[in-house]
Amino acid sequence: MSHALRIGIAGLGTVGASLVALLQQRKNELAVTCGRPIEIVAVSARNRNRDRGVDLSALDWYENPVELAEKAEIDVFVELMGGATGSADESVRAALSRGIHVVTANKALLARCGVELATMAEEKGALLNYEAAVAGGIPVIKALRESLTGNNVRRVYGIMNGTCNYILTRMEKEGLSFADCLKEAQRLGYAEADPAFDIEGNDTAHKLAILTTLAFGTRIAPDDIYLEGITNISIEDIRAAADLGYRIKLLGVAQVTETGIEQRVHPTMVPRDSVIAQVDGVTNAVAIESDILGELLMVGPGAGGNATASAVLGDIADIAKSRPGAQTVPVLGRPAATLEPYRRAQIQSHEGGYFIRLTVEDRAGVFAGIATHMAANGISLESIVQRPQSGREASSQTIILVTHATREDALRSAVAAISADGYLVGNAQVIRIERTKAD
Amino acid sequence: MSHALRIGIAGLGTVGASLVALLQQRKNELAVTCGRPIEIVAVSARNRNRDRGVDLSALDWYENPVELAEKAEIDVFVELMGGATGSADESVRAALSRGIHVVTANKALLARCGVELATMAEEKGALLNYEAAVAGGIPVIKALRESLTGNNVRRVYGIMNGTCNYILTRMEKEGLSFADCLKEAQRLGYAEADPAFDIEGNDTAHKLAILTTLAFGTRIAPDDIYLEGITNISIEDIRAAADLGYRIKLLGVAQVTETGIEQRVHPTMVPRDSVIAQVDGVTNAVAIESDILGELLMVGPGAGGNATASAVLGDIADIAKSRPGAQTVPVLGRPAATLEPYRRAQIQSHEGGYFIRLTVEDRAGVFAGIATHMAANGISLESIVQRPQSGREASSQTIILVTHATREDALRSAVAAISADGYLVGNAQVIRIERTKAD
Repeated sequence: MSHALRIGIAGLGTVGASLVALLQQRKNELAVTCGRPIEIVAVSARNRNRDRGVDLSALDWYENPVELAEKAEIDVFVELMGGATGSADESVRAALSRGIHVVTANKALLARCGVELATMAEEKGALLNYEAAVAGGIPVIKALRESLTGNNVRRVYGIMNGTCNYILTRMEKEGLSFADCLKEAQRLGYAEADPAFDIEGNDTAHKLAILTTLAFGTRIAPDDIYLEGITNISIEDIRAAADLGYRIKLLGVAQVTETGIEQRVHPTMVPRDSVIAQVDGVTNAVAIESDILGELLMVGPGAGGNATASAVLGDIADIAKSRPGAQTVPVLGRPAATLEPYRRAQIQSHEGGYFIRLTVEDRAGVFAGIATHMAANGISLESIVQRPQSGREASSQTIILVTHATREDALRSAVAAISADGYLVGNAQVIRIERTKAD
Repeated sequence: MSHALRIGIAGLGTVGASLVALLQQRKNELAVTCGRPIEIVAVSARNRNRDRGVDLSALDWYENPVELAEKAEIDVFVELMGGATGSADESVRAALSRGIHVVTANKALLARCGVELATMAEEKGALLNYEAAVAGGIPVIKALRESLTGNNVRRVYGIMNGTCNYILTRMEKEGLSFADCLKEAQRLGYAEADPAFDIEGNDTAHKLAILTTLAFGTRIAPDDIYLEGITNISIEDIRAAADLGYRIKLLGVAQVTETGIEQRVHPTMVPRDSVIAQVDGVTNAVAIESDILGELLMVGPGAGGNATASAVLGDIADIAKSRPGAQTVPVLGRPAATLEPYRRAQIQSHEGGYFIRLTVEDRAGVFAGIATHMAANGISLESIVQRPQSGREASSQTIILVTHATREDALRSAVAAISADGYLVGNAQVIRIERTKAD
């Protein structure tokens, strides 16, 4: 049996503690499967005295993770601290510059400087694995950078934030408001005290930026993402979607178009009969559409200490199974030096169907006005539902339109014209419809 | 750039021809991604003169695939002939005995002698990759043997035969009979002229046997599988299932139980709201339940020249990316020598819910008799539907029972007792219910 693979772990939160426990409990089994033992030799975390339910007494303790990465006698540095800058960044660079393999779950770091880190890793012959950074336990990184080699990917899209999907699922199933569901998600630990990063779509955007690079071979462009969160989704939208045969999901979508690559994160209507529409609660799902394989959809736990630790463990095992000197798999799917510049397709040129919910004053000519503006912008309608508003606003009506495929700028122009007419109560609600395989 | 990876391909049917075309068309792109060119140097097929739409003129042609495997100057032997014995078997052994890597899509060969081949490969330091052998383009082999390392798998189950799923989907959506849907599947090329291998469940069984070994680390046991095809599924079953909130799918299931490992292939009721219930037509799906990760579900094309070629290409690319001498990944998830004996759990000890459809004579006391036999065998009922039979058999009634979890032997004993009472018209229809994540 070969020599042990020596691991240093920086960050002992939920994921880190799970990982230490698993590596200790399954030591013998892992040694058989990987052909050599995996041994934790050093750890680093903020608080040495916290009880993490694991025995750290035999391990070298480093106050400073960067020092661990610089000095410890290790083969793999596992970064589980998080954060796009600071210790996480410095320690990963320190490890790579020594030619030490790195495993990380840090999507923010990769989104910010993944190309630079990939370049360092490839120059030094080190591996940089990060399966846990996107969609937790779902092996989407491996699918894109290994299984789909040779395929031209056309679109990758998915539910990549459990908090948002939990909220939307509860709103639909129980008829609760967004605010109530958010509170419930916070109570259950599915949402942070400050939930903005999740519900505004930023978390999904970081993950999408990484997938875009793997899918299309372009440089990571986390700032070139159209972003719209779920805070404006109302129970009325969800009900209207259901009536029309749709569910609303927060999707991240990256897609090749004639004008460049679209990256967008927004609430999206998906056909109720599609597989992805059935993905409920904190579960994640990622679909990859490519020219040889067709559509591959993967569904699984997107977060949680164990699911994330499982992905980290898989990354470590991949290194354990490879032999010294065996640099495999380019970090970002192709050598970092060969990544193409990212050419952004603006959201204005997006083409697709749209759901539009308008609350309008109940007076003559309103509907004709709406129809005229749609026609003037070349937008044809797939369905129209008009119903009286119940309750206190009985003098208003709700009109729901579903368009055939049209361009975003035409749609916006039509909505602006409708708004300018003065009969709208409140703002127009516009939700993009995403074509899925079941269409 | 390193030297080219030299490939020999035996078998130029749909998959082989797709693969040759892809390797030729995407030569430059693959060289960038893999860090070195992939070059086909030799091929073998039955008929040299057939037009396959690809240019083979620059390649060495071997009449005999075994000779190709024995003599060609290649790094990887790609076996796409199929068949559990004969040329496929001999040529794979010839290649491995030279220490040449093998990529194959041959589930029958692996089910029959996978452990032996894995042992040869590991002794010679060769890789044996076979992603295309199970569920076509879905990367389930990679998920089980790489991503889930360290996990204890509890159950793996899936829709792994497109022909059966196509037939069941059409029966449900269009209310057609099994025979009509089979004819339609044959007309469209989704079913063979002799469809027995698919519709009796044998094809699913081969794939399941491979997944069982990867999931549980036991020796491949293709003959220890409980097998029941879809030929007895009637439109009445599908309608009754729908009424109760279920769909019927042909599943292969491998599961750890107290008495051993169950391997079973049979028509199965799955909750209509579960993700796997939405998998329609020729699409495949595989779910893996493990203790760290939780449930991972993968959905994608299970057959077809391109989808299969995509998986083969991924396997070749994995070899291209690895460096000489870098033996990675044990063939069957752990070194072949460490695989445990397979301990079969008999179907009689299976525990689960059951759907039972009985056509009975319309006379007093029948229902009481049925209920008494169920109770006598300790079976409690979740739901009971009784409705008059329409049409010519108006003197009979249909009774549908859904049981809570019970043992198969208790269920069979109850059904035998009911049959012995003499009021059944025809045979009792019994369909197992599979718990899914959505339950």
